[in-house]
Amino acid sequence: MTDRTQSPHKRQGPRSRDAILQAASELCREQGYAAVTMETIAVRAKVGKPTLYRWWPSKGAVFLDVLLEQVVEPAVELPDTGDIVHDLRSWIRGFADLFDDLHARQLLTGVLGAAQTDAELATMLRERIQRPLQAGNRQRISAAQVAGDLPAMDPVLLEELLISPPWYRLLVSGESFTHAYADSLVDAVLGHPQGA
Amino acid sequence: MTDRTQSPHKRQGPRSRDAILQAASELCREQGYAAVTMETIAVRAKVGKPTLYRWWPSKGAVFLDVLLEQVVEPAVELPDTGDIVHDLRSWIRGFADLFDDLHARQLLTGVLGAAQTDAELATMLRERIQRPLQAGNRQRISAAQVAGDLPAMDPVLLEELLISPPWYRLLVSGESFTHAYADSLVDAVLGHPQGA
Repeated sequence: MTDRTQSPHKRQGPRSRDAILQAASELCREQGYAAVTMETIAVRAKVGKPTLYRWWPSKGAVFLDVLLEQVVEPAVELPDTGDIVHDLRSWIRGFADLFDDLHARQLLTGVLGAAQTDAELATMLRERIQRPLQAGNRQRISAAQVAGDLPAMDPVLLEELLISPPWYRLLVSGESFTHAYADSLVDAVLGHPQGA
Repeated sequence: MTDRTQSPHKRQGPRSRDAILQAASELCREQGYAAVTMETIAVRAKVGKPTLYRWWPSKGAVFLDVLLEQVVEPAVELPDTGDIVHDLRSWIRGFADLFDDLHARQLLTGVLGAAQTDAELATMLRERIQRPLQAGNRQRISAAQVAGDLPAMDPVLLEELLISPPWYRLLVSGESFTHAYADSLVDAVLGHPQGA
């Protein structure tokens, strides 16, 4: 029997994968999300298009991985310092920082835009990013409500009241989402006095 | 001088325009938004592609007009019965009805998805739909706050707390937006007791 873990192909797999994600990310910075194609990614990464399609069904799926590795893991998780109100405030302010970063914004709007007409990509996006983050957030919110640190309200609703306005501004209205607006949002949802 | 308003081309304009929007709408119902192209719209409407491109720069722009004529005008405006709380409730419930209609949902996600990587379409969408609706809503909300019928809060924030969760569910999480959820949302934002 051949030890397939030792095959050159297998050994090269992860290196090619990194090279491909790196190439996609560079092209997006240089040309903007819309201009990048599977073709240009393959050329820049020096791999064949079949290699690309073996791992990813679409350009959106490649950028979903770029998004996961370069943007989401450090930036979109609710922090945990022990002070939930402080954590929610930092978390929502984090969206302002994220959307201020042109590369992150291109990746987010590019992948979310493509997901609107690509059900497979939408499913991947939800299963790999949105649902796991949401599940963790809702658990934290519920626990803080039990401890009396957050207002009693359906935790699903409380989370969505906080997280929806930044996404609405990014994807629908195009208005900028600032730290000041993030703070008013958190104050309003948590029932804190306005203009404090 | 020739009277250009009497030219056959000018007289046929509006009829062709209706035929094109009708063709685009039918194709979207039959094949789904993603499958429709400028080519297939032109063939179905029996016009040349140059005619299509004379009026619309992209498929997204054609569907923005379909959206405006078939979906948005009747469905997305805040009603005015004199009872603002009742009106806000009907308005937010209206998003549940809108998103339940497969054709409307396809048009909304198709055009909004395309707008993420098409700045010209995003501008058209905001100038022709989102901003005029928003301006009207904010005026109504401000007036109701002055009358003491809505809680004192930045009217921009109040409007976005109500309108963002349906869009977040449509465009990001994919969870369904129901009448029951719409009612809890309105109650939470207006500070009404939960579970009433």
